[in-house]
Amino acid sequence: MIIGELINSSRKAVRPLIAERDAQAICEVAAAQVKAGADYIDLNCGTFLEEEPERLRWLVETVRQAVDAPLSLDSPNPQALASALPAAGQQVLINSISAEKERFRALLPLILEYRAKVVALCMADGEIAQTAEDRVMIGGKLIEDLTAAGVALDDIYLDPLVQPLSVSEAGAGVITETVRRIRQLYPGVHTVCGLSNISFGLPNRKLINRYFLAQAISAGMDSFILDPTDQKLMGAYYASRALAGQDRFCGQYLKAHRRGLYSGE
Amino acid sequence: MIIGELINSSRKAVRPLIAERDAQAICEVAAAQVKAGADYIDLNCGTFLEEEPERLRWLVETVRQAVDAPLSLDSPNPQALASALPAAGQQVLINSISAEKERFRALLPLILEYRAKVVALCMADGEIAQTAEDRVMIGGKLIEDLTAAGVALDDIYLDPLVQPLSVSEAGAGVITETVRRIRQLYPGVHTVCGLSNISFGLPNRKLINRYFLAQAISAGMDSFILDPTDQKLMGAYYASRALAGQDRFCGQYLKAHRRGLYSGE
Repeated sequence: MIIGELINSSRKAVRPLIAERDAQAICEVAAAQVKAGADYIDLNCGTFLEEEPERLRWLVETVRQAVDAPLSLDSPNPQALASALPAAGQQVLINSISAEKERFRALLPLILEYRAKVVALCMADGEIAQTAEDRVMIGGKLIEDLTAAGVALDDIYLDPLVQPLSVSEAGAGVITETVRRIRQLYPGVHTVCGLSNISFGLPNRKLINRYFLAQAISAGMDSFILDPTDQKLMGAYYASRALAGQDRFCGQYLKAHRRGLYSGE
Repeated sequence: MIIGELINSSRKAVRPLIAERDAQAICEVAAAQVKAGADYIDLNCGTFLEEEPERLRWLVETVRQAVDAPLSLDSPNPQALASALPAAGQQVLINSISAEKERFRALLPLILEYRAKVVALCMADGEIAQTAEDRVMIGGKLIEDLTAAGVALDDIYLDPLVQPLSVSEAGAGVITETVRRIRQLYPGVHTVCGLSNISFGLPNRKLINRYFLAQAISAGMDSFILDPTDQKLMGAYYASRALAGQDRFCGQYLKAHRRGLYSGE
């Protein structure tokens, strides 16, 4: 599953579109992502702070006019989610809950009320877990707490929390190892991440992001928050899925090739 | 370990250089590969058939004048190897033995006599093994037979045999699974492969080859037979090793970046 990340108020090109309520431009960004292969459209206006509830609601109403794709509401703010969810339609994804007690308690009722899918961060109160073992432990507890509350396993997208390669020697290995173990322990649960944190502080960041995508797919990660209009990145996606045996007879790779959905460069 | 594959008589640009004994041109191909990062220089003149022993000897003598890098003698032909080995210098790599009885019996004495490193193909008499289980079984027997005969584990480079993704649904998964299991069962043994077979019959073959390299590195494969002058492929190599935790603090990635050894595109 590809979650298109472009509608985010922390992006310089997008913030003014939200500030000025430029519905047409926002709809174009949404439509371009769907055309490029996005299954979900992420909406993030966290930088608007106390205006976030109203802005997120506006984004939801605006984007739903433009595309049929389901929406990902990218906020940990219960007020913003409560404001936007009634307008968000079917199969909404809440991005994200975590094992932090207050956040978990505040978001769970919304997830249940709207039967939402949910991104669940492997983050508990205190520091970020450094090892795969600790992330599996935090992630496992989250999965168990969510399913015990009535969330279907198939609606949970565990995010192992990507940290920069430049400061973490274990690097991508922590992520691939966490994904492998979670899939063994909880078959049926999904795993997801954003890509760009991995390359923070290194030259040629997009190169690192693409090969990280390849290795994460090989480990079994099935969902990504990314820019689907980046055709080289989509080349990494289609090629890596075919290689990992997730694309029977390379059918999607060949179809994407015919439709020009990726760059072969 | 990178084994530079360019000196191969099946390549149109190289065959006439060998046919005409163009020592200078061959030396340039060897030196370019070393400069681009090759640890070993592969020499293959199998298409010369009955002339192979003499031609391989000439290649060895020629290339040793040009570069200090050790050589990989790429032939299953005991006569060609016996002709070339005395001139090949230290740390020679024989590419390759297999579990096929006749080939194993013919090549083992040469490996032992020259204390050679050896590429060992997961291929027994009869069909190529289709599953990872079967490849691990064949590869494990090869490792055990070679070490029992006195070959050091560190001198064995097991090749799981890459087949085209387009005809094998398991695809790269057979390779990554075989590599993972072999490394668990025989810590210290190396694994190696050529890349280009994987993409046979698909569009944008180089793209597939690069993401295959990333996934193989993630699984623990540590040696590759490739074209080190392909700067995009080397970008895949350096980025993937850093991601897989095989490059402390991304030191080699950063060094290769400064020296312009890979393309960030």
